[in-house]
Amino acid sequence: MKSKAIGLAIALALAATSAWASTVRDEPIKPIEPYVSDSPELVELGKKLFFEPRLSMSGIISCNTCHNLARGGTDNLRTSIGHKWAAGPVNAPTVLNSSLALAQFWDGRAADLQEQAGGPIEADIEMGMPHGLALQVLQSIPDYVEEFEAVFGSGEITVDMVTAAIAEFEETLVTPNSRFDQWLKGDDDALTEDELAGYRLFKASGCTVCHNGPAAGGTSFQRMGVIEPYQSTSPVEGRAAVTGKDADRFSFKVPTLRNVEYTYPYFHDGEARTLEEATDIMGRLQLGRVYEEQEIDQIVAFLKTLTGEMPEVTLPILPPSSNVTPAPDPYADAE
Amino acid sequence: MKSKAIGLAIALALAATSAWASTVRDEPIKPIEPYVSDSPELVELGKKLFFEPRLSMSGIISCNTCHNLARGGTDNLRTSIGHKWAAGPVNAPTVLNSSLALAQFWDGRAADLQEQAGGPIEADIEMGMPHGLALQVLQSIPDYVEEFEAVFGSGEITVDMVTAAIAEFEETLVTPNSRFDQWLKGDDDALTEDELAGYRLFKASGCTVCHNGPAAGGTSFQRMGVIEPYQSTSPVEGRAAVTGKDADRFSFKVPTLRNVEYTYPYFHDGEARTLEEATDIMGRLQLGRVYEEQEIDQIVAFLKTLTGEMPEVTLPILPPSSNVTPAPDPYADAE
Repeated sequence: MKSKAIGLAIALALAATSAWASTVRDEPIKPIEPYVSDSPELVELGKKLFFEPRLSMSGIISCNTCHNLARGGTDNLRTSIGHKWAAGPVNAPTVLNSSLALAQFWDGRAADLQEQAGGPIEADIEMGMPHGLALQVLQSIPDYVEEFEAVFGSGEITVDMVTAAIAEFEETLVTPNSRFDQWLKGDDDALTEDELAGYRLFKASGCTVCHNGPAAGGTSFQRMGVIEPYQSTSPVEGRAAVTGKDADRFSFKVPTLRNVEYTYPYFHDGEARTLEEATDIMGRLQLGRVYEEQEIDQIVAFLKTLTGEMPEVTLPILPPSSNVTPAPDPYADAE
Repeated sequence: MKSKAIGLAIALALAATSAWASTVRDEPIKPIEPYVSDSPELVELGKKLFFEPRLSMSGIISCNTCHNLARGGTDNLRTSIGHKWAAGPVNAPTVLNSSLALAQFWDGRAADLQEQAGGPIEADIEMGMPHGLALQVLQSIPDYVEEFEAVFGSGEITVDMVTAAIAEFEETLVTPNSRFDQWLKGDDDALTEDELAGYRLFKASGCTVCHNGPAAGGTSFQRMGVIEPYQSTSPVEGRAAVTGKDADRFSFKVPTLRNVEYTYPYFHDGEARTLEEATDIMGRLQLGRVYEEQEIDQIVAFLKTLTGEMPEVTLPILPPSSNVTPAPDPYADAE
């Protein structure tokens, strides 16, 4: 269902016609390219499902609740709130540019967006909805049956169809054309002196060892607290929960820095409130470097240039339930 | 800030150029006209605030949580869920076409949309946010200060500015051009025989005594249970809470029937799940009439022709908090 190749071809074609675009800078952070889906109907269905609170037991929590597209694809809480006001264990990672990551979730326990999408629906502290009941809800809504039929050639709705549609919608949630990308593509005026100084310092001090690629992150798992241990009250142990290896304790997927101005608070436990604080802690714990205030300001100035064009999302109109649609139950225990 | 006159003038001008539109039928239900704001910047600011979860103590509840524009302007719960999963006492009325009502809330305690908008923000079981703190949050966000300055000529944000903006956005949330309105404007083919029979029965049996005007409701307060008392476990007593008069017990604002296919479940307590059930109960309790099954089906068929064009809403991109923005606290008691 993906057509990254087509998107790339278009990007290359555009690049060939543009003088400045031919001078792409060779940096550890790469530009983000727009995603062109070859299945707009699948994207549209996925958008509906992304905003669909009937995929939750309460009937009021959707993917967009914690991955709010009005707010940089996250909820800006330390850790998320789920079914019956349950406290989540980790900070909600942004859905923006999440297609560019090597795996999904902080601990990488899902290989891709499709595998990820099913998790929060049934997690008891998130949407709290058994997959079977979620399918029964969708299957009871004639407009959905018709739409699945049109997209998949079958109106017998499956979890794979639901997650494939959500994943394809999420593929479109990239944020190209940030000022940093404009600079990467040769526009020397896109960054100020301070921002450029910040980027040079960021690179020179080793941040790009982890924060690289088009998402400026998401390309590896790394231990939180390399030089000094990270102090946290969070019981979450990261990648070790997936691999079972003691060496992977406190190892997490490196988060993207794209749109990081919007995705506060920071770290897997959401304990860093500001970019200045996060930069300071990263310098000390990961690099053994104590940045001076001016250095932090420059790095933060650079980080804010990673804000790209947010996806323009027209709110879907969700089809009404039928008389036989199972009613939501906000007070039910999650199963 | 309103320009209903302009909207009307445009509608009339259009009507004058259209043969069928000149034969508007004189019925108790009137067509809905589009709303053209003369302050698009105010509308845009209001849209941001309507989707703004930082107006809640938890940082995750916005106007759109209970008045979801993807779902006919409501949450489709019996009664809404608020701060810390508090149970609301009444069913969330749709925000769609709410500008057409004589007053706001089920008991009419707010005179207009602007007066309404401030209530849920500070209600401890809704958004749980003291107005002072909400203003402090907005004031700490430079992009908001700039936008209020541009719209109101002052960056000193007040509650009146906030509610004026939300109200003006809500004015735009009308749903013109339903099939019923097409029929009202002279298109004889807009309704099927069954739908038309349903409307005739609806009118002949007295429903339009209360469900009239462009919103097919919202023009009066009426007692729930005229012929027979309404049986409900809900402690809500309606209009009496505002007037203090015993005669107003169980008197409620007549809800709009526009888009009623989307605004289930029904009544102030949300106890009627389907349109068939609601029609049956209304017939018995308000009119002393027991509709036969076929009659109910015809009335329901008519009711579904009241679904209009839903507002096309592009999700706003909310400006990021600053380092001094008060953090949300999902676990705080509402004040």
